[in-house]
Amino acid sequence: MNELTPLDNPVEALKASFRLHASGVAIVTCSSPDGKPVGFTATSVTSLGATPPLVSFNVARGSSSWPSLEKAEFVALHTLGVSNLELANRMAADHTKRFEPNDWHKDARGIPLLHGVTSVLILKIRQIVEVESNAVVICDVVEGFVGAEQAPLLYHQRSYVTVDKLA
Amino acid sequence: MNELTPLDNPVEALKASFRLHASGVAIVTCSSPDGKPVGFTATSVTSLGATPPLVSFNVARGSSSWPSLEKAEFVALHTLGVSNLELANRMAADHTKRFEPNDWHKDARGIPLLHGVTSVLILKIRQIVEVESNAVVICDVVEGFVGAEQAPLLYHQRSYVTVDKLA
Repeated sequence: MNELTPLDNPVEALKASFRLHASGVAIVTCSSPDGKPVGFTATSVTSLGATPPLVSFNVARGSSSWPSLEKAEFVALHTLGVSNLELANRMAADHTKRFEPNDWHKDARGIPLLHGVTSVLILKIRQIVEVESNAVVICDVVEGFVGAEQAPLLYHQRSYVTVDKLA
Repeated sequence: MNELTPLDNPVEALKASFRLHASGVAIVTCSSPDGKPVGFTATSVTSLGATPPLVSFNVARGSSSWPSLEKAEFVALHTLGVSNLELANRMAADHTKRFEPNDWHKDARGIPLLHGVTSVLILKIRQIVEVESNAVVICDVVEGFVGAEQAPLLYHQRSYVTVDKLA
């Protein structure tokens, strides 16, 4: 491979490769079976085609959100801008402290919607594919809410960053 | 939803929301059944856990690469840096002109590996989940090759961009 260094250990290879890859940051929320808000920061959100409109994301089945997510019918996907840095950090930290009283509300379906994000998509879970200790969650887009344009929040090399034009 | 504009049409909602989301850019390659190189630019590549190391990506089943991909045992995932802009554009354009004589070679497994990228992961396809006209491809990481650090290539609002620190 010319100038590249071989890494025979696949775990090391995955980690080293993805350190060179950047991802958009989003937050997925749903309601727990007893009606409490549940959510987490996700860097795996991606479109799965527009006809019909589908979205997929990955989640660890050992995460605090999984027991609620696997029972949920609907979830909300929130895209984030640079003004949402504190929210992204909070939704990736202690799961008992992710929701603050005035920064979200329940919609008519009971889904917790976060305020101040750049957009929200209401998703209906269509299929969950369990793979080892993880899952791919495949969802239909039901409807959405879009805000003012803002520079997107990204994750790269264990830090939050934004975009810049190519030189 | 406070300051957000509702979009009842789910296709419009998906498009408007994902215009606010940025994605890392990668290239997936494999060999066709008759040994020709096949590849495409992908913005859906994401990790699916590290124990064991897994990667997923999405692909349209109507794409030129699909007939080869669905028969392939192995694929190569290439992460891209800002120096790979021309390659990213070429691998998203006319599928008969994606490979140039001196910018790739076949590895021992017959997989086409592109030169000059920031890293390569050799992936073994574990499961393909067909969803409408698309598919989620779930792969085990076999080994990898990692190059020098470089600013990553991203896709946002139909343009290639890179990362910048938060202000």
